Amino acid sequence: MSRLADINGAIAALSWDKETYLPPKSDRFRSQQIATLSSISHEEFTSDETRDLLAKTATIKNLTAKEKKNLLVLQKEFDKSVRFSKEFVVKRSMIISQAFHHWVEAKEKNNFKLFAPALDQLINLKREEAAILGKNTHPYNNLLEEFEPGATVEMLDGLFEEVRSKLLPMISKIREAKPVKSSFLKKEYPQGKQWDFGLSLLNSIGYDFDRGRQDISHHPFTIGIAPDDVRITTRIDENDFSNMTFSCLHEAGHALYEQGLDINEYGLPCGGPASLAIHESQSRLWENHVGRSMNFWQAHYPGLQKEFKSLKKVGLKDFYYGINKVKPNLIRTEADELHYHIHVMIRYEIEKEMLMGNLDAAGAQDQWKSKYKDYLGLDIQDDSEGILQDVHWSHGSFGYFPTYSMGSFYAAQFFKQAQKDLTDLDEQIAKGNTAPLLQWLRENIHQHGRRYEAEELCKRVTGKPLNLKAFIDHAKEKYSDIYRINL
Amino acid sequence: MSRLADINGAIAALSWDKETYLPPKSDRFRSQQIATLSSISHEEFTSDETRDLLAKTATIKNLTAKEKKNLLVLQKEFDKSVRFSKEFVVKRSMIISQAFHHWVEAKEKNNFKLFAPALDQLINLKREEAAILGKNTHPYNNLLEEFEPGATVEMLDGLFEEVRSKLLPMISKIREAKPVKSSFLKKEYPQGKQWDFGLSLLNSIGYDFDRGRQDISHHPFTIGIAPDDVRITTRIDENDFSNMTFSCLHEAGHALYEQGLDINEYGLPCGGPASLAIHESQSRLWENHVGRSMNFWQAHYPGLQKEFKSLKKVGLKDFYYGINKVKPNLIRTEADELHYHIHVMIRYEIEKEMLMGNLDAAGAQDQWKSKYKDYLGLDIQDDSEGILQDVHWSHGSFGYFPTYSMGSFYAAQFFKQAQKDLTDLDEQIAKGNTAPLLQWLRENIHQHGRRYEAEELCKRVTGKPLNLKAFIDHAKEKYSDIYRINL
Repeated sequence: MSRLADINGAIAALSWDKETYLPPKSDRFRSQQIATLSSISHEEFTSDETRDLLAKTATIKNLTAKEKKNLLVLQKEFDKSVRFSKEFVVKRSMIISQAFHHWVEAKEKNNFKLFAPALDQLINLKREEAAILGKNTHPYNNLLEEFEPGATVEMLDGLFEEVRSKLLPMISKIREAKPVKSSFLKKEYPQGKQWDFGLSLLNSIGYDFDRGRQDISHHPFTIGIAPDDVRITTRIDENDFSNMTFSCLHEAGHALYEQGLDINEYGLPCGGPASLAIHESQSRLWENHVGRSMNFWQAHYPGLQKEFKSLKKVGLKDFYYGINKVKPNLIRTEADELHYHIHVMIRYEIEKEMLMGNLDAAGAQDQWKSKYKDYLGLDIQDDSEGILQDVHWSHGSFGYFPTYSMGSFYAAQFFKQAQKDLTDLDEQIAKGNTAPLLQWLRENIHQHGRRYEAEELCKRVTGKPLNLKAFIDHAKEKYSDIYRINL
Repeated sequence: MSRLADINGAIAALSWDKETYLPPKSDRFRSQQIATLSSISHEEFTSDETRDLLAKTATIKNLTAKEKKNLLVLQKEFDKSVRFSKEFVVKRSMIISQAFHHWVEAKEKNNFKLFAPALDQLINLKREEAAILGKNTHPYNNLLEEFEPGATVEMLDGLFEEVRSKLLPMISKIREAKPVKSSFLKKEYPQGKQWDFGLSLLNSIGYDFDRGRQDISHHPFTIGIAPDDVRITTRIDENDFSNMTFSCLHEAGHALYEQGLDINEYGLPCGGPASLAIHESQSRLWENHVGRSMNFWQAHYPGLQKEFKSLKKVGLKDFYYGINKVKPNLIRTEADELHYHIHVMIRYEIEKEMLMGNLDAAGAQDQWKSKYKDYLGLDIQDDSEGILQDVHWSHGSFGYFPTYSMGSFYAAQFFKQAQKDLTDLDEQIAKGNTAPLLQWLRENIHQHGRRYEAEELCKRVTGKPLNLKAFIDHAKEKYSDIYRINL
């Protein structure tokens, strides 16, 4: 498993480079390199040697609980991955690598047609993949399993039903209230100063630059190249303060999780994340519960205000209101805490239909437009701000989006628990000291990796399974204050 | 071979990252990743499958000359590499990876003791490697073969004897002449402006930034990650104009060679360089015969002078004299065109003794000091400017240094031929147009890759085998003019 982790780490390094520093015309060979290493990784993991080693390990007496868990997950993954032929794995890697570059070009040129053929290829690929994984369940469930073991279409349909019945009415009420001002966030924020401010936030919350780095890419991401090498990327818009700042905090949340995993479990399930939703809970916790809180900016706003002349006349409270403005918009990553889940719901509904064979690329584009009109009252003018905005599908990630919402709900539940366990948490954050929170996360979540599955971990930490109460309570309290209404 | 080229390209990407952007504490896992991929590459190349494919290919009738050459080289490399056990390959990769980081630390802290144990390990490793390659020849010949097929200790001893009899007397005469001024080169040259000027030179001579990029590293290098991804690095000293400028031109010379190789021969010998000395001939040709010529600066000096206030009062001729100043110094990469070969000779003499088992790390340090005293009259105060200055040994490269001198002598011979073939070459260079020269190199050298071995290529291009005449003629003419003496 250590050898496989080395190969997968190399693939991660090649992928990082591909989205940061790769020369413009080098795509073909890079895709080929990644495909070759993916094929080697697949060959080695699905080999008879692995089968024999797993069988042999299973006969060892007195395995620790952690060792048993590692073995259980590996056996499950082995059983799953031997279903894929070498040819399929190579094909998948090539299609995905090329699709990504078609997406970049299509987005740059604001022309969905340049990506549509690749998306149709991806839909067929993922339907094929789902069919290989099992023909008796919903195809979407098979793909969900890759990101969020245990989650199902039934569970998600129920979850988003609750989003509709509880969150949508809240959003409607807010839209009737007097809007808060946020235009100052769209004034001039020079690139170099934003970059420096981002670094200062990262340092402040404990991101370890000796074991990671930040760079610029099209779409921000976090990537674990090795336990001591967890990198993040961001993007900077000189006329949008929020874009970089909250992506920094978001990716740092992911990275803090990976930097807190157990290095002694290198290459083993217990040395990896519990699930994507748990991963996302960490990013959302830092982005929203810390980064969009009044407490956090009590500590950081004075320094920030000094750096940017666009904030010279903006008080702390108005700044706090501004960064929490609730307003429908086109871009998921720039959405407020509440509308965010409407963006996710739209993607979930579309990709579910694509995988059931009811929608092709052209149909998905139509659905995108009509759903944004129906749910958010928005017209899509440019595909680059519509169906082309997210990198995920071009990466072959179908079934990934719902984990974003689950992650937010986990985040609310975890943060509420941290506030209970650490009685002066809010006070410390207001002093700029997030070290106790990080310590709490390290102990309760990070160090365990996949020792416990998402639901089990959530019960251990908060005493309850995943539910929307903490999130809805948090939203009610926060936005009743900001909008001075009774939610 | 294409699959192996993918793996080796991935190793190159990991190595590039290691020396440019790797976070400080990520060394351990990076070394492990490189070791694992090296081991896979070795396993695959030395597999029974490769043996069978080579045997099968050998029976094909009507192979082209190029195909025959590919097969011949691959069979030779196969026969050589199956001599190394998997364990030895992994051990070699680990020792070398770790040695590099010891060297970085030792150099930073100016303390040879921090590198000495690693160097002793490397000496033993390379002696072991030489013994595996063949017990009946000089151990140094076995390692030379890796970089410069056909070169031998006997040949190099003869070559450096000629350096002693012809070059050393020339240097002595110059040291008695009136020195030229160069202090203006050590004034203030702001980092950002140097970087921009470097990029402008690279663009001007035809380095393709769509298929490569430049970054900063401890020691400048060129690395081919893929045919469409040939990267270079440089370093900038704000108080030394020459350091970055000539390293830029040097590495660009290497990169132009790799960018000119035949992409259709990907992974095959004819798609790779002929030898290290031929590779070096390309860097030396651009660095010295173009970059240190009066013609080149006639085109570029006016723009340069405008950018840097340190050159405001320096005329073109004085600038040209300054960048060609002949003076003994401690650092090989900053040596002038003539003393350069004395630096190489010292390294050659020391590494030959190390490989014969006559010198350990401590002894090498002593020899370094005494030889710099004897040949150049210089005292070594700091190891960082002495035995720690070069990266090569820490990379496990023993037998590499002599190819630098051979490369310079090839460069002189090739450039003389280009001047014969392109009658207005000097005139075009003086206009800032080096495209015809690049075209000549592409046609006569680059496109062939390893289709012809170094000596054969040299005869095809210049009509003669490698000899010192062109270099000595070039030096006599150039330095007689600069120092106004009769050399």
